[in-house]
Parts: sequence; structure tokens; C-alpha cells
Amino acid sequence: MNRIFNDPDLVVEDMLRGWLQVHSDLVAAAENRRVVRHVRAPIAGKVGVVTGGGSGHEPAFLGYVGDGLVDAVAVGEIFSSPTAKSFFDAFKAADAGKGVACLYGNYAGDNMNVKMAMKMAEKEGIRVRTVVANDDVPSAPRSDREKRRGVAGEILMWKVGGARAAMGGSLDEVITAAQKAIDSCRSIGIGLSACTIPAVGKPNFEIKDGEMEVGIGHHGEPGIKVVKTTSANAMADLMLETVLPDLPFEAGMEVAVLLSGLGATPIMELYILQARVAEILASRGIQISRHFVGNYFTSLDMMGVTLTVMKLDDELKACLAYPCRSVGMTVEG
Amino acid sequence: MNRIFNDPDLVVEDMLRGWLQVHSDLVAAAENRRVVRHVRAPIAGKVGVVTGGGSGHEPAFLGYVGDGLVDAVAVGEIFSSPTAKSFFDAFKAADAGKGVACLYGNYAGDNMNVKMAMKMAEKEGIRVRTVVANDDVPSAPRSDREKRRGVAGEILMWKVGGARAAMGGSLDEVITAAQKAIDSCRSIGIGLSACTIPAVGKPNFEIKDGEMEVGIGHHGEPGIKVVKTTSANAMADLMLETVLPDLPFEAGMEVAVLLSGLGATPIMELYILQARVAEILASRGIQISRHFVGNYFTSLDMMGVTLTVMKLDDELKACLAYPCRSVGMTVEG
Repeated sequence: MNRIFNDPDLVVEDMLRGWLQVHSDLVAAAENRRVVRHVRAPIAGKVGVVTGGGSGHEPAFLGYVGDGLVDAVAVGEIFSSPTAKSFFDAFKAADAGKGVACLYGNYAGDNMNVKMAMKMAEKEGIRVRTVVANDDVPSAPRSDREKRRGVAGEILMWKVGGARAAMGGSLDEVITAAQKAIDSCRSIGIGLSACTIPAVGKPNFEIKDGEMEVGIGHHGEPGIKVVKTTSANAMADLMLETVLPDLPFEAGMEVAVLLSGLGATPIMELYILQARVAEILASRGIQISRHFVGNYFTSLDMMGVTLTVMKLDDELKACLAYPCRSVGMTVEG
Repeated sequence: MNRIFNDPDLVVEDMLRGWLQVHSDLVAAAENRRVVRHVRAPIAGKVGVVTGGGSGHEPAFLGYVGDGLVDAVAVGEIFSSPTAKSFFDAFKAADAGKGVACLYGNYAGDNMNVKMAMKMAEKEGIRVRTVVANDDVPSAPRSDREKRRGVAGEILMWKVGGARAAMGGSLDEVITAAQKAIDSCRSIGIGLSACTIPAVGKPNFEIKDGEMEVGIGHHGEPGIKVVKTTSANAMADLMLETVLPDLPFEAGMEVAVLLSGLGATPIMELYILQARVAEILASRGIQISRHFVGNYFTSLDMMGVTLTVMKLDDELKACLAYPCRSVGMTVEG
């Protein structure tokens, strides 16, 4: 394992030290060192937007703290939920008295810790409502959508919720918009190589040379099938075959597409894949009105991608177009 | 080799197809399909800024075409120089009658092709001047600085030259600023794993597990030594020991620091390294006034980093702070 760290048990602390220095114009540490907040949070007159999750997914989660996006983030260990206390402290860091929208992904640890944090918040009179992202199609059948994991669709949920809050929306309005955002997203990942947590020192799952795992999760959760590696075009076909019928996405719709590398995939390869995704969507009469291609939500050094397609309406389009500034995403006004 | 491509000989074409679609607000293809130009190039009243180089380094080179940056880029095959014709066509795409600053890296193929392209340009009455980046300290001794390769310092050279041109500078002023920029930069790379060109199918050099190559080039050019892998802190020390004495960087100076991943390095590890870089510079009385941490100049799926330190004066600071917008770098006004 040739990697860059000091004490393998302190990678998150060491990363945060660098992150807070480099991005001191944008973010600051809260009193709880596992909470990163917008440098001006709580922002007066605005609903607070909070998220949180395990580390190792950078620029998610902390990279989406910024103007028009997230106000505070609870930072977990690598691939582990932040504590309930950290979620609670993130609520406190974000709350300006108009309530907090906690927009996070559907994982057991996060669900449990957010629930506990909400009880703590209730005692202090902080109003918190949640939206739980479940955009990952392969992780459960359509009939059990509430069991699906959240993957890169979370970014579009934060973008929409963050914009709605920045526009002056009430807590109910932010929650409704964020819920609509994630309900309009469908995602799938393909893994081409495993990833290694520094403190473990070897991959905790395996992807063989010449094979790829379709439907893999952000932490190596098993996919729906392991198949021989194919061309980029066949990969795009395979992903869209799963994603498109699920909403379903149909002719005449407008969509946003987010294609994220999982960490070790060369940038050029994301664009090779995107070219085919665009071709298929066009052939189906589906119009892409916004593209995001890059390393938006990674899994350490995993090779592979996630594809997210989001159905748009006027409100979602306006929210995606609303200016934001953060490490992970900047949209200019 | 688990990677994402179709025909391995057409990876550049396939990437460009995706890139031009996704970034159609910013860039367009020239008549020569191996030239990507700013969507408004040539931009009236402005010196044209051109670069070019091999593919596989994304977001370099084409990702730096944008407002306040590069106007046109010549696109080569993977790790290969663009043709003389492509450099010439990039000059034509960028020239608005005020001349062209061609700011590129010191590689034999690029030197030869730029020279030929300049002869073609001369015949058509296009005035071209060049700055050749040579910021890579380990690639030749200090006494032979003109033999050194260009690495990620090129990005800061484009940023400064691009800003000077956008501010309305003459060709001479743009060249002088870009030359000062690269003369003020010193860089070093460390490789932690080799990279694989899809059409080759296996790495054309080797880095063993448990070892790292100090001073490695962007295409796997041999470094100055192969050593056992160390802690992130020791890596930072090793890089700064080579870089700082070379300019030399001394107490009281202000600098910019650019830490770029080589493609497969997790984002979090760049920040772990950056924390130590900042600590050492502070201890030496050197003030970092601008940070760039991320995948700015990659080498396919190579694991590793390059560190660039740039000495600043008022002109360089103003140029780095000048607004720009591109895929690879955005600085807000």
C-alpha cells in the first residue's frame, strides 16, 4: 500500500488540519473538531443546511460547505458515520433560529446518529427536519426504495436544498425542495478496483483484473453482478439500462447528469463515458440541461464511477442554476 | 487493466467529444479537431495565450482554456506532443492581431513542434513569442536549469500570463510576466505507483509496493532516487528539502503553493501532505498567501503528487488574484 499518511488512525485529523488552513476563506472548525462550518455560520435569516458522513469521500462531505450550499458538516472516521454529538454540534453551528435541514444519506449509522442528534436538538429548542437520500438504484428493488443507499445524488440534493435556503425559503420549503431533488435522482456505480483504508492496509473487498462490479456501493458494498470488463460505451449502456427505467426517465424530459469518478479513475475516462451517456440520452429524446463531470464523490483510491440522472422541473433548474461557491462545486451567477 | 475506454487508439477523440459537449459554454473545437479554443476566441483587443501538450494530464492542458486564462490549446496523443500543425492552428485560433504568447513545457517534442509552428505563423504574419516552463528541480542540476522539464508550475505560468493578457497587457508584457512566473516556481514530484496508457495495456515503468520514486516526471521519467515509502510528513520534508534551496526560498518571502495529485491519489491525502508543507514553511518564516490543492495536473492513474512553490511579488500576486474561470481553475472576482 503506497499511500500518503502519518498515523493511520489520525488521517481525518491530519486532513482537517490541512483543509481548514487551505480553505480558511470559506470554512472554519466548530468547537467540536469533527464539525466543519461555513466561516459565517450560522447565517442570519437563513435556514441552516447540514450534512455529514464518513471521511474518504472527499470532496464530499466537507467540500460542499459554502455559499449557497451546506452550512455545517459532521465529519466521521473513514467510511464511518459521524457521532450523534457531531451531528448535534453541526445543527448548532448552522442554526440561526430558522431551523435546520439535515440532508444526508441512507446508512444505518447515519440514520441512528441523526435520530439521536435530533433528540438532543429538540431539548435545546432547535427545529430539525431531515431528507434521507436513497438514489442508488441497485441497492434495493424499486418497491423497497426506502432501503436504497444514498450516493452521488446527495450532491444534487445539497445543491437544491442549499439554493432554496439561500433564496430565503422556510424550513418546510427547503425540505420539500430537497426531497423533490432526491426523489428525482437515480444513480448507479460501477467498481473497477477496490480501495484501501490506510488503517486496514489492504482492500476489504476484491475486484479482479478483467472484471467489474455493477452496482457497487461507495464503501465496496456488493453490487448486483460481477461481469467481465467492457468498453466504455457498454458500461454507459449498462448503467443507463438500470437507471432510466427506474424513475422512469422518458422522452421529452429535461435532466441533469452527474458523472463522478470514485477516486483513481483518470479524468479523461469520465469524459469518454460521458460522451456515450449524452448520445444515449439524446437518442431517447431526453435533454441534458446541466452536466457535472469530475471527482465529486469519491471512495479513497477506488477506480470506477457513479452515474446520477436527475429529472428537472422549473424549480429544480432554478436551484441548480443558483450561484454557489464551495471546494466541491462552484456555480457562477 | 480495468479502465474506461473504447478503442484504445481513439481515447483522445472520445474524450474530446465528451469534453466539448459538457463544457460548450466555455470551449469549442477549432477546424483542426486537435485544437480546443475559448468559445469566444480570438478575443478582440487581447493578446492570445496558447499552450499545448500530451493528453492524459487532465485537467491540463485543455482544462485551462477559459476566461482570464488560455485562449487555445493544442491537444496531443497521450503523453505525446501535439503536432506542429496543431500548435499553428492554436495560434491562429487565439490571435486577434495583438500577437500570441505560447506558454508551454520543456519537452523535446513540444520544443520542436512549437518552433516549426512559429515558422508557419511567421509566414502568415502572426507574431508569436514563447515561454518554456522548466520548474521541475530534480530533472537537471541548477546550473543546467534550461534542461529542466516543466511540470505543474505551468499552471501558475498560464494563470499569470492569462491574467496579464486579460488585463490588457502587450505581448511583451505577457511574456515578461509569464517568464517571471515560471522563474519564480520550483517543483518536485513523487511517484507512488506507475500509470498505464490504455493502448499499451501495462505500465511502461515500475514502482514497487513499499517504494516511491522521488523526482519522477509526469510521464514516469526517472527521478533522482527510489526510497522506501515514508510518512506523509517525511515526504513533505523530502520535497521541500529539494525545492526550497534551489530558488532559494527564504524567510520573509511570500509564496503560492500548488499541491497536485497525479491522478489516483485520494484527495484527503493531498490535504494531509499540505498540512505539513504549511507547517514547515511557517517554521522557516515563509508566508503562504495562496494555496491550490487538488488534481490540477495529473498523469492518468499514477499515484503520487507534485509540489510547486512560487515566490510572489506584487505583480504575481495581482495576477494570481485576477478572476478566471475554467474547468481546471476558477478564481472569483
